[in-house]
Amino acid sequence: MQEGGPIKVGVLGATGTVGQRFITLLSAHPWFILHALGASPRSANKPYTTAVNWKQTTRIPHVARDMVVKECKPEHFKECAVVFSGLDADVAGEIEGAFRAADLAVFSNAKNFRRDPNVPLIVPLVNPSHYAMISQQQVQHSPPLKKGFIVTNANCSTTGCVIPLAALEKSFGPIESLLVTTMQAISGAGYPGISSMDILDNVVPYISGEEEKMEWEMLKILGGVATSDEGVKSFDMHARNPLRVSASCNRVPVIDGHTECVSIRFAKRPPPSPQQVREALANFTTDAQTLGCPSAPRHTISVHEEKDRPQPRLDRYYQDGAGVSVGRIRQCQVLDIKFVVLANNVSIGAATSSIINAELAILKGIITS
Amino acid sequence: MQEGGPIKVGVLGATGTVGQRFITLLSAHPWFILHALGASPRSANKPYTTAVNWKQTTRIPHVARDMVVKECKPEHFKECAVVFSGLDADVAGEIEGAFRAADLAVFSNAKNFRRDPNVPLIVPLVNPSHYAMISQQQVQHSPPLKKGFIVTNANCSTTGCVIPLAALEKSFGPIESLLVTTMQAISGAGYPGISSMDILDNVVPYISGEEEKMEWEMLKILGGVATSDEGVKSFDMHARNPLRVSASCNRVPVIDGHTECVSIRFAKRPPPSPQQVREALANFTTDAQTLGCPSAPRHTISVHEEKDRPQPRLDRYYQDGAGVSVGRIRQCQVLDIKFVVLANNVSIGAATSSIINAELAILKGIITS
Amino acid sequence: MQEGGPIKVGVLGATGTVGQRFITLLSAHPWFILHALGASPRSANKPYTTAVNWKQTTRIPHVARDMVVKECKPEHFKECAVVFSGLDADVAGEIEGAFRAADLAVFSNAKNFRRDPNVPLIVPLVNPSHYAMISQQQVQHSPPLKKGFIVTNANCSTTGCVIPLAALEKSFGPIESLLVTTMQAISGAGYPGISSMDILDNVVPYISGEEEKMEWEMLKILGGVATSDEGVKSFDMHARNPLRVSASCNRVPVIDGHTECVSIRFAKRPPPSPQQVREALANFTTDAQTLGCPSAPRHTISVHEEKDRPQPRLDRYYQDGAGVSVGRIRQCQVLDIKFVVLANNVSIGAATSSIINAELAILKGIITS
Amino acid sequence: MQEGGPIKVGVLGATGTVGQRFITLLSAHPWFILHALGASPRSANKPYTTAVNWKQTTRIPHVARDMVVKECKPEHFKECAVVFSGLDADVAGEIEGAFRAADLAVFSNAKNFRRDPNVPLIVPLVNPSHYAMISQQQVQHSPPLKKGFIVTNANCSTTGCVIPLAALEKSFGPIESLLVTTMQAISGAGYPGISSMDILDNVVPYISGEEEKMEWEMLKILGGVATSDEGVKSFDMHARNPLRVSASCNRVPVIDGHTECVSIRFAKRPPPSPQQVREALANFTTDAQTLGCPSAPRHTISVHEEKDRPQPRLDRYYQDGAGVSVGRIRQCQVLDIKFVVLANNVSIGAATSSIINAELAILKGIITS
Repeated sequence: MQEGGPIKVGVLGATGTVGQRFITLLSAHPWFILHALGASPRSANKPYTTAVNWKQTTRIPHVARDMVVKECKPEHFKECAVVFSGLDADVAGEIEGAFRAADLAVFSNAKNFRRDPNVPLIVPLVNPSHYAMISQQQVQHSPPLKKGFIVTNANCSTTGCVIPLAALEKSFGPIESLLVTTMQAISGAGYPGISSMDILDNVVPYISGEEEKMEWEMLKILGGVATSDEGVKSFDMHARNPLRVSASCNRVPVIDGHTECVSIRFAKRPPPSPQQVREALANFTTDAQTLGCPSAPRHTISVHEEKDRPQPRLDRYYQDGAGVSVGRIRQCQVLDIKFVVLANNVSIGAATSSIINAELAILKGIITS
Repeated sequence: MQEGGPIKVGVLGATGTVGQRFITLLSAHPWFILHALGASPRSANKPYTTAVNWKQTTRIPHVARDMVVKECKPEHFKECAVVFSGLDADVAGEIEGAFRAADLAVFSNAKNFRRDPNVPLIVPLVNPSHYAMISQQQVQHSPPLKKGFIVTNANCSTTGCVIPLAALEKSFGPIESLLVTTMQAISGAGYPGISSMDILDNVVPYISGEEEKMEWEMLKILGGVATSDEGVKSFDMHARNPLRVSASCNRVPVIDGHTECVSIRFAKRPPPSPQQVREALANFTTDAQTLGCPSAPRHTISVHEEKDRPQPRLDRYYQDGAGVSVGRIRQCQVLDIKFVVLANNVSIGAATSSIINAELAILKGIITS
Repeated sequence: MQEGGPIKVGVLGATGTVGQRFITLLSAHPWFILHALGASPRSANKPYTTAVNWKQTTRIPHVARDMVVKECKPEHFKECAVVFSGLDADVAGEIEGAFRAADLAVFSNAKNFRRDPNVPLIVPLVNPSHYAMISQQQVQHSPPLKKGFIVTNANCSTTGCVIPLAALEKSFGPIESLLVTTMQAISGAGYPGISSMDILDNVVPYISGEEEKMEWEMLKILGGVATSDEGVKSFDMHARNPLRVSASCNRVPVIDGHTECVSIRFAKRPPPSPQQVREALANFTTDAQTLGCPSAPRHTISVHEEKDRPQPRLDRYYQDGAGVSVGRIRQCQVLDIKFVVLANNVSIGAATSSIINAELAILKGIITS
Repeated sequence: MQEGGPIKVGVLGATGTVGQRFITLLSAHPWFILHALGASPRSANKPYTTAVNWKQTTRIPHVARDMVVKECKPEHFKECAVVFSGLDADVAGEIEGAFRAADLAVFSNAKNFRRDPNVPLIVPLVNPSHYAMISQQQVQHSPPLKKGFIVTNANCSTTGCVIPLAALEKSFGPIESLLVTTMQAISGAGYPGISSMDILDNVVPYISGEEEKMEWEMLKILGGVATSDEGVKSFDMHARNPLRVSASCNRVPVIDGHTECVSIRFAKRPPPSPQQVREALANFTTDAQTLGCPSAPRHTISVHEEKDRPQPRLDRYYQDGAGVSVGRIRQCQVLDIKFVVLANNVSIGAATSSIINAELAILKGIITS
């Protein structure tokens, strides 16, 4: 599809956990070619192999081994049509802002811009329609931008949950209430992240800021884009059909894969049956797939009939981590329906989402080489 | 308190996980003295040390080491004023029934008699008032019993949840809806129980029969005992204020201690505030304590102010496992209040409950030496 | 290479842990095609999907899903040029013997025939020369066999250790003493195998029969095949240069990948330096590779320079589990050299070894379609 | 025994892992009373409850809750007859030196002074005779000290191993060679210590500096104190019977308890049999016990006959963690005898050793109130 040859991309936060995942995925990508790696001044000017404490189960890709890591400054990335950011929140705001100001297209995993009213928060299997906000983001920037913008993806625990919810709203209309209890993998906290003393033989029933993120992000993602009479666009936060979300977030001794127990109440009465829910989930297709994003899962939601699935260790590799797994779909005694979702927090929950978002931006013509 | 000297007690299923716990606790009990141990025919006639595959972190108590294990037949236990049963469900029904028929007082951990309309399901920190059913159980037995009866305790995941709920209903009146997601320890499945291949780096979002047990047992425990015009007693299953319970049960790689995320809606409007809930839980006292049960916790519920507690590894030993810990009490966006409960499934969730139940029966005069 | 089209193969013990691994690997094999699956009478006559409790992280291969499982009787496998056995030791002896008697070529993972004086115990990256014993095995069988034989592979903990040892003996001559302490993964015990109650937050310093197996099997594998004056072949058990082996075997809470701390003393004085050892290991090539076995690792031993590698979670996928990783090569204060080996017990330690053994047998002309 | 009432003690590094353990043990000590707590300037002047991130399974002892933490300066500890140090190595050298210079008696867990030729490295169940060095340490100090001194205890992995070795040397004379492979608990690395990403489902075959420590410390501890013709004392490093030690150190996913596989060769020919070794270990008594140290284990070494013990999860609480457990005593094919040792690294491997060392110093009259 790329007549002009491979598209040059950069990675910010290249030595971190999400950065390593970006590099692994991009090294085998059909469209993209790694062009620049950015990290902290401590790592700058070192070959990537020296700078990184590599923690993946595959070797460092050859393309990256000898690349010299640079500081996260726009001048080192100006040839990159796409910049992926795995930066930590404490530096992401400033750096990503500077990159956008330098007219670069930034796909961020950090939380800093997620609540920005002009920045879409896109889960690529759910709301690529929110790309409609990009032109306003560019125009309202001072000075206005031609190519630069920021797109964020969601918190890893939000992503897993929101995909089946989108499928259900598509089939059955608005969801009214949602109770979700998560059991989240340690990799979601980065490296070194969680001390082993805190999680071996243990559960930690708290993740800082996580519940607030889930409760807020779902509204932005599942909501629409409204246009005022003056033509100003805004995210409607699911306002036409208010959605109440209550999240309880836990850390468990699992390496990869967030498991979530979800109970929902539909606006529609009577609500769909478990069997109808099962079918709606199994048949869910996404724009990412139909438009032809190479990193999109061929099948989005794996619906398990086995009574004890999905399980993170067995199911987190479904569709190379780009799909989600749902099981135990049954009636809830308090709301309508309950089920278990499993999503790979380091794939669809992080780097894979950013990459599909970039693929979508290219296919939609928002990024042009 | 025991003028007549120590009370002889027996343990059925003495070589199993719960049986080992009974023996550990009873060997240091101020009232009880181990008199007879029962196990399967395979173990019978062996010294306990030979018969058991001991898996506790303390040594086999001296009193038990050389006791000869017997078959689970009433004639071997006729001197026992109390018989504790840690039998598996596949044999518990028949054996416990035979023991009762032989006029023995049986305190069971098995599920077999929990749904029997004449058998109380007693969590000793919640519903000792259900002992009121014993006389009817004895009279309706054929032939009627003088001393024999069966009391069961609850499933380990039910026990942890129902204690704070009882405290809240005592302070604020009926609860109307309850959503609970459990993260249960592997010891709840006995030994060998869960294969390590199934739980290392994993969560299993299913425990056979567990959700049904929780949803049903809570109603029996939190409900009252009704008396018909004909004087017939029955468990009212919380019927005067119907309670809807929805449970999602998960197994996690934790050795001991069930963690549960609970959301509730009160009948009372407006509902109590988080701070009122905190105080009600912290101040909860039980009959077991005021009557002077030696195994009752001195303080029932530990209310944590730390934002990341309770945690199973750190909090499961609270009150030697006889108390429960509650934390993260906060508002729920969908129901009223949510919080996290931790209970030690092998202590208050199993053997300790049975022992306090027996202590209560003695203090109430239901068992007489 | 296969002019006659794909080679039909069967799997015995198809529903077990090793059997599932065989099926996964064989479903994508360039030469072999799954033709028959055998399991216990309990599973027989069921579709594989129904019979198996699938525990792999990939889905059941399509080729196997609807195959009807058969009893492990030779008549169901007579079209199979190769039969792979993942049978448990309690039944493997009888069944594998019957298959050989029916003139079938059996590649076994079980221990039953490993000590048979006519059965080679082949680690494919070490001693394919032991195929020289096959003709004698066939001739001495009663009645003599035309095509049938049994080849076993080694115990999983032996396999990892013996590969670097073979490399070192090839470069520096005989090893005289060997002390090895293993830290073995739970998957080595099959399913359900180790109870989670035994291994979470624990080490079990004992594996039944394992130390004896390691101490004996290494001698058979690293030794040669001697021929008497009468032309009778026998395994010499490293007798010309006696090798003393002392093994201490431990189970640790790791899912896949056996880590072994090895100390050795060479016969050669002075012994090679750590750097010479490093080079010898890194440069080791095998017949399996040069002959063109499709499942042989392209590179046999990965020598790590990082001071804290190999680690099972990060390195067990090296060469899809067909290679081994060695690190921390340094002087031993008591013997000569010490190092750490990591081998994937379910790949090169089990199914992959059998498959390469079969590939070798085909390339050497021992099996002809 | 203390006529003058309780002995005032201080704890340096009071908020750290070892400090928390000191406080837990000292709060229930029959002789000692907590008088001063020292920590970093960041924690100074805060109540202990506020300063500490408490990670023990018991609550913060009442005696410590409201104590105000001080900076680690001698003037705050001058009333303390004993100062226990759980300081990290990066600050321990300077602070402990300053405390000694202020004529305070310091019992250190840090490595800084272990190699000092005048500082004894005392494992209290092994070499209290090394207290003979204290007078020289005081005299050679500039200016000479009246009461101040430093005693260190050993690295946690050394301690477990050296106790059975001392028992064996006592019975059978010098050991000549020792190969030890450790499987060490995560708590040995402090908090936060090991990242969960590094150890879940994993083994790390490297602990920085650990092998060198074990190989060197054993010589100092098991060696004697020599006196030159000029009356100068020195540690002889086991020189009369040179001892070669080779250690391989691994981190495993275990919370507490270091497991070690040990092989030894005695100087004595023929060597003792496994049964003789078993008896020598079981009968080992120590000065700490006979002198009446209240924290000494009543029985030093638990010899296991079960074939699969000791195990860290089950045996680390033996004698409240003050004793060690040995099992699997058998012949080694390369050296003479091999066995498995388990020691609780946070008890006898750290705080408990320091406390018994202080008790010994009091009983020997080296510390006087």
